[in-house]
Amino acid sequence: MPKVVDHEQRRRECEDALWRVVSRDGASAVSVRSVAAEAGMSPTNLTHYFSTRAELLGAVVRRHVASVRAAAGEIGPEGVTVEQAIRMLMAVIPTTPIRRRQSEIWLLLVHERQSSDVADGLLRSVQRLVQQEVVAGLEGLRRAGFLGAGRRIEDEALLLHALIDGLSVQSLSDPRAMNRARVRRLVTQHIEQLTRPLQA
Amino acid sequence: MPKVVDHEQRRRECEDALWRVVSRDGASAVSVRSVAAEAGMSPTNLTHYFSTRAELLGAVVRRHVASVRAAAGEIGPEGVTVEQAIRMLMAVIPTTPIRRRQSEIWLLLVHERQSSDVADGLLRSVQRLVQQEVVAGLEGLRRAGFLGAGRRIEDEALLLHALIDGLSVQSLSDPRAMNRARVRRLVTQHIEQLTRPLQA
Repeated sequence: MPKVVDHEQRRRECEDALWRVVSRDGASAVSVRSVAAEAGMSPTNLTHYFSTRAELLGAVVRRHVASVRAAAGEIGPEGVTVEQAIRMLMAVIPTTPIRRRQSEIWLLLVHERQSSDVADGLLRSVQRLVQQEVVAGLEGLRRAGFLGAGRRIEDEALLLHALIDGLSVQSLSDPRAMNRARVRRLVTQHIEQLTRPLQA
Repeated sequence: MPKVVDHEQRRRECEDALWRVVSRDGASAVSVRSVAAEAGMSPTNLTHYFSTRAELLGAVVRRHVASVRAAAGEIGPEGVTVEQAIRMLMAVIPTTPIRRRQSEIWLLLVHERQSSDVADGLLRSVQRLVQQEVVAGLEGLRRAGFLGAGRRIEDEALLLHALIDGLSVQSLSDPRAMNRARVRRLVTQHIEQLTRPLQA
């Protein structure tokens, strides 16, 4: 009887192995060799599903973005309350050991972008997605009546996105100082400012 | 006649070579071997002045911090105007190709901190210095009468520091989108907010 391989199933196994490597050892540990070993298959076999390290990194990025989106939750037509906005930001900024591990993929891409077009492309797509989510969140705040008068979404989105990236890199670089409680306090402070009118 | 070596002079030559490597090739290119080649000496000879890559990175960090401080200028007893605050922030956030190269040292340290106590220590000292400068800048704004009523320096310093780090990482990751003009606009917007009272 011929051996039947369920390729979808195998691909999922590879992705799970990849995700375990990232969550345990960080993004720099990702390679065709390390993921194959984790999946219990030969590197040659793995390359049927992911032929290069760049493809592996792309899969990590997609899964990370999907998991952050799921954690942040959907924005309904009724908009976003202040508490929801804070919860969404807390889902995006890494403040637990495993989220920090997963977020290293982002810093790895920044690090590699000058020598790798693939890294550069992945990085831009991550930043574009975050920017879209931030704009959607601010539009949600406005729909729910929580965005202060005179505030322009375009400007506030760029500032908020920079704040997210800054708190993320600080949480990665000094987890004890920039811990979950402090991130929450700063995020709350910023969102509460956004509810107030912008005085000219 | 015995050969007289001016060790201070040689050390300065090593530091200059180190700085050329960073400014031209980025922080990841720093190694005892690459800096020795740039200085036109043997690796063994270089190790009389810098015995490990970690010591080289430490020297890069000190020089980078010193050059940023010099560019930001002194804060006098009369305090800091809004325009001065903006200029200081523009000196800290990398927005030119050479400043971006030099700032890669920071991301490299974040990247390496988990596997290197030296990188972790250097990173903390950089973050502490930036934090001190930010606090000094905000105190200067207050002395000159430009900090809005009700604003607590401790809180505003943490938010401003996160904003600096976020704009820096975005400038490194997408220099065309986060260009000098956009950084200036966002920094100006944030500082102008700081001049307004914090409404309870």
